[in-house]
Amino acid sequence: MRRLSIRNLHVSLVAGTIAAIMAMQTAPVVAQQVTMDAVTIERSMILTQPGVFGVVTMFKLKPEWDKVPSYERMGSAAEVANLIEKHKDAVLVDFYLTRGLKTNSDFFVRIHAYDLAKAQTFMREFRSTTIGKNAVVSDTLVGVTKPLNYITKEKSPNLNASINAASYIGDAPRFAIVIPVKKSAAWWTLSFEQRLKEMEAHTVPTLAYLTNIKRKLYHSTGLDDVDFITYFETNDLLAFNKLLTSLATIPENNYHVRWGNPTTLGSILSPEDVIKALTE
Amino acid sequence: MRRLSIRNLHVSLVAGTIAAIMAMQTAPVVAQQVTMDAVTIERSMILTQPGVFGVVTMFKLKPEWDKVPSYERMGSAAEVANLIEKHKDAVLVDFYLTRGLKTNSDFFVRIHAYDLAKAQTFMREFRSTTIGKNAVVSDTLVGVTKPLNYITKEKSPNLNASINAASYIGDAPRFAIVIPVKKSAAWWTLSFEQRLKEMEAHTVPTLAYLTNIKRKLYHSTGLDDVDFITYFETNDLLAFNKLLTSLATIPENNYHVRWGNPTTLGSILSPEDVIKALTE
Amino acid sequence: MRRLSIRNLHVSLVAGTIAAIMAMQTAPVVAQQVTMDAVTIERSMILTQPGVFGVVTMFKLKPEWDKVPSYERMGSAAEVANLIEKHKDAVLVDFYLTRGLKTNSDFFVRIHAYDLAKAQTFMREFRSTTIGKNAVVSDTLVGVTKPLNYITKEKSPNLNASINAASYIGDAPRFAIVIPVKKSAAWWTLSFEQRLKEMEAHTVPTLAYLTNIKRKLYHSTGLDDVDFITYFETNDLLAFNKLLTSLATIPENNYHVRWGNPTTLGSILSPEDVIKALTE
Amino acid sequence: MRRLSIRNLHVSLVAGTIAAIMAMQTAPVVAQQVTMDAVTIERSMILTQPGVFGVVTMFKLKPEWDKVPSYERMGSAAEVANLIEKHKDAVLVDFYLTRGLKTNSDFFVRIHAYDLAKAQTFMREFRSTTIGKNAVVSDTLVGVTKPLNYITKEKSPNLNASINAASYIGDAPRFAIVIPVKKSAAWWTLSFEQRLKEMEAHTVPTLAYLTNIKRKLYHSTGLDDVDFITYFETNDLLAFNKLLTSLATIPENNYHVRWGNPTTLGSILSPEDVIKALTE
Amino acid sequence: MRRLSIRNLHVSLVAGTIAAIMAMQTAPVVAQQVTMDAVTIERSMILTQPGVFGVVTMFKLKPEWDKVPSYERMGSAAEVANLIEKHKDAVLVDFYLTRGLKTNSDFFVRIHAYDLAKAQTFMREFRSTTIGKNAVVSDTLVGVTKPLNYITKEKSPNLNASINAASYIGDAPRFAIVIPVKKSAAWWTLSFEQRLKEMEAHTVPTLAYLTNIKRKLYHSTGLDDVDFITYFETNDLLAFNKLLTSLATIPENNYHVRWGNPTTLGSILSPEDVIKALTE
Repeated sequence: MRRLSIRNLHVSLVAGTIAAIMAMQTAPVVAQQVTMDAVTIERSMILTQPGVFGVVTMFKLKPEWDKVPSYERMGSAAEVANLIEKHKDAVLVDFYLTRGLKTNSDFFVRIHAYDLAKAQTFMREFRSTTIGKNAVVSDTLVGVTKPLNYITKEKSPNLNASINAASYIGDAPRFAIVIPVKKSAAWWTLSFEQRLKEMEAHTVPTLAYLTNIKRKLYHSTGLDDVDFITYFETNDLLAFNKLLTSLATIPENNYHVRWGNPTTLGSILSPEDVIKALTE
Repeated sequence: MRRLSIRNLHVSLVAGTIAAIMAMQTAPVVAQQVTMDAVTIERSMILTQPGVFGVVTMFKLKPEWDKVPSYERMGSAAEVANLIEKHKDAVLVDFYLTRGLKTNSDFFVRIHAYDLAKAQTFMREFRSTTIGKNAVVSDTLVGVTKPLNYITKEKSPNLNASINAASYIGDAPRFAIVIPVKKSAAWWTLSFEQRLKEMEAHTVPTLAYLTNIKRKLYHSTGLDDVDFITYFETNDLLAFNKLLTSLATIPENNYHVRWGNPTTLGSILSPEDVIKALTE
Repeated sequence: MRRLSIRNLHVSLVAGTIAAIMAMQTAPVVAQQVTMDAVTIERSMILTQPGVFGVVTMFKLKPEWDKVPSYERMGSAAEVANLIEKHKDAVLVDFYLTRGLKTNSDFFVRIHAYDLAKAQTFMREFRSTTIGKNAVVSDTLVGVTKPLNYITKEKSPNLNASINAASYIGDAPRFAIVIPVKKSAAWWTLSFEQRLKEMEAHTVPTLAYLTNIKRKLYHSTGLDDVDFITYFETNDLLAFNKLLTSLATIPENNYHVRWGNPTTLGSILSPEDVIKALTE
Repeated sequence: MRRLSIRNLHVSLVAGTIAAIMAMQTAPVVAQQVTMDAVTIERSMILTQPGVFGVVTMFKLKPEWDKVPSYERMGSAAEVANLIEKHKDAVLVDFYLTRGLKTNSDFFVRIHAYDLAKAQTFMREFRSTTIGKNAVVSDTLVGVTKPLNYITKEKSPNLNASINAASYIGDAPRFAIVIPVKKSAAWWTLSFEQRLKEMEAHTVPTLAYLTNIKRKLYHSTGLDDVDFITYFETNDLLAFNKLLTSLATIPENNYHVRWGNPTTLGSILSPEDVIKALTE
Repeated sequence: MRRLSIRNLHVSLVAGTIAAIMAMQTAPVVAQQVTMDAVTIERSMILTQPGVFGVVTMFKLKPEWDKVPSYERMGSAAEVANLIEKHKDAVLVDFYLTRGLKTNSDFFVRIHAYDLAKAQTFMREFRSTTIGKNAVVSDTLVGVTKPLNYITKEKSPNLNASINAASYIGDAPRFAIVIPVKKSAAWWTLSFEQRLKEMEAHTVPTLAYLTNIKRKLYHSTGLDDVDFITYFETNDLLAFNKLLTSLATIPENNYHVRWGNPTTLGSILSPEDVIKALTE
């Protein structure tokens, strides 16, 4: 239907571009569409697929939480476990403890879902649990995973090979760091080739840390007030400080409107252990 | 009366411009005046007409809401339905659920009215309902619809034709996104022709998304602290992320003082379903 | 006494300028001094005179207001009327309803007084009324009126004539808009002649709106964190949006550090009607 | 001991500078040291000496204050008088009423002390009085007085003479204004000579106001998040608006990172009258 | 494993750099690893070693604290002493009193630990003490100590010698100041040699203050939203004002995105004395 209307376009200074862009952009929209019915959430899959929504919600306990009877606070762990079980075909749920390390939150929750509405439903129901009712949301970040954009096999073969040649080794990471990123208009209005070049320079210093720092990226432009949610897991915070200091020295840093603010650093724990730690 | 006084103007470096601008600007003010009496609000009309006021109000439930007895919370759905019925000749009302996706709101309300005072009266009375009393306003945006300014049949015929040649198809959209926009002095002080050229470049990447993303624009300069309220509906959030990423690459992006902050993403639901979801 | 000390000044690179500036600035300070004793406040006079203090205070009702018995809330209208009567020789008082249109206020009050201390006393006593006690101040703006600075008969005769040739006609305006303005150091460090030229360009697009938009200016530099409080009344909000959009296109806009933030839009109502509307 | 180690310095590109700066800066640190023991606070002395700490604390009454029985609120005046008497050998205390003129405070307190620890102790004990307990601190500014830096007899003899030739005359000032100032890196990295030149230009327009506006300066760099606290007293707010407008036109204004924010305008009253005004 | 994959890298414009950076950065990550088991915390050691985590947490007492019975508030001192004793093999704990000098805090706590998780556990348990429960966290800063980066024996021998030649003398300092620092992308994208030159210039004015101001640095990039936490102790606040004013005049100041905000100035006291002061 749209193709017909385009045929009627009078040739003008923009018409050629219009047609090209419409063709180019319509295709992937369809191609990446995810079938949402009858999906069973499998951790290893959902954490590596494109087209998956990520919702990160920071919570700060209200003073009222301290007045909830101790057994009821502990009981909240079972309540949350039941909720996770109920939604296990719709969302993947991770918990993190931030109390003691952050000002504005005591814990945070990361949700993955193929359908954002299902993530919303889980988070809404979580708000009605004992711990959810006794906490205020201090920040929410919504994003979606996408295939690699710059450092692909085709566009940057050497770096792509380097990235794929190493992976995290050693003990399970104890810490997670969430750093939201917003880039400037100056960044986005660079040509793709220029951005590719900058992202190659950005990628080089990360290679040394592939074995001790895990990384995951969510795209948020239009869905939230940031462009990206960068998520890291590590056991070696000194290495993480060095990686981020290295990234700061890369010219791409000039295009950051927001890098952190807040940076959220927490301990990776089971939902039960997070609730236990906040109950003691 | 004003014309007489102008005749007496001594010719000066500014006098010619004065007369021209006064003539030019007085006319449309009168032409677009809307008769406010005896209007029955019809959705399809009010959503497409110029000169219509839009008020978007974000609400965050107070902790007290949880303590309102469950039947009273559910009863609020009927209370709100009655209020909407009472004002049906004055305002059009839409509800959206944001709990689970946003930090600062649980739901938002969009009002359309030919007379802003009537929108104010509805919103004021809504504040006295059970749910209104138990919620705080976290943001309010006021704007007014106007005829197309740049991409008109006369000024940009090809793009205008492209816009009109395609429209939203497929299932009713499940998500709405509200993105307030403020443009810089550098933007406004460009000549109209330059702004037209930039808006043409801005419009091109939007064409590919006419069939899966709906868009509506409100003008807010002087009425609020933003210049525009952009409102979108879609079923395909990945496409929406791509559209907004494309728009970020357009030079017009350099003129954004504010683009979002907050971006509000919510589910499109009936007032009853929003209240039900917040009652469970 | 000061003149004597200046005579003793050794001639230096700055001495000449010192003397000139001291002479220039001392004069108007004396000239505009207002006799404060035994003044009866007359609306038409105080609203047009220079040397009058204006205090605009935005209020947001506390949740406790809803719990005040209905007859007591209504009784507050009489209480406020009595307070206004008591201070009628000291201050002129105007009320505006913002609930439904603004996030941070439900109503605002504008005070005019020849002595700022008397405005302070009224506002302090208002805070002890039932409605004052149940409201928090969300913003306060303090300014003072002064004679025209740029578009005077001497400095810009044509524009001055145009401004004086037209005045507001038609029904009493239903809406008021308060827009605080702060200008950049770049503005203030322009020469007076350059600022005059810019203000002439600023004035031109306002001429078309003299008949449907009223305007009043307060100077706040040093008294508050803004340079100006601009206050408007109109019945035609679409025209107001056009006026402010036109002003945005004037180069003077490049010198705005703050223009709004907040823009406050409210309905012009009697104190009684504002309190009634907030009581229903 | 430090001198010995410097002798061992190998001559290098920085060594000469090091020695010069160390000599230069060590001296005044010693010279201005204030003996803190057995000082009796005398208003006229402590207000003119260098090396005196100033602490300005803004307070906003809590809603609970209204519920304190009236006699207890009035009694707080005596309680505060006793506290001032108790600390009269350690601190000088001034009170100001801001309710009715400011958003974020109802009153503020200015403390002078030779030892900052004593100012802290007074302010801490004030927080335990009835009015202190029922108020929240909305802002605190800490600074220290120093000898004139730029407009000295040696560096700028004419302006120094002008400043000394005139002083405040007339009735006791009724209003005080506190304006915190932070200057940009661009300012601080100017050479001293350039800054002297700019401060001379800054000083010129102030001369006309020496007889009707009092001024006091506190240095805060490193002690607080501002560089200076500027404090004014006047009876003529229109003159004050003109002075600050004049200062805005001076190139030094280009180096302001913060000038106000908040500007605090209050009435100069005895502690008793401030508490009385807030009790009525 | 990673080395093998690098061998397969096709030589490209980035490959050489990749290898160099990987070799360079991997080494120190390993070298500075700290063995965390069976460490007994010794003040003099942990305060001088690299690889130590520092957590600075600012607290503001809630109004509820005033309602806690006096003996219970005093008892909190013993409770906190017990907690410190319990964790003495895991963390070093310091307390500071800010009430009377700061707006947003009444006291702050500085923790040192070889393992950040142990610092988190202490701070989490502190939140469950009587004073912890009655306080809100107003700010948290997390950093880690590292060896000198710029002014080392190798890179800047003269300045390094000067720093080592002098140390704090005189009475124990009574005041501590915490100033968080964030540097701009422009800073980080300078070459190391340029940054070294700037840091040498920065270091010169600090030499004069080595005997009366103590200084400690924590690196926070990636762990928090600042790059550095600078911590000072002194008895001479006038000298501190002069030092910070001197640092402001150094070109490095042009690269500060954040310097303070908040600057936190407090009195150095034992935990017991801080709690006592807040109990009176």
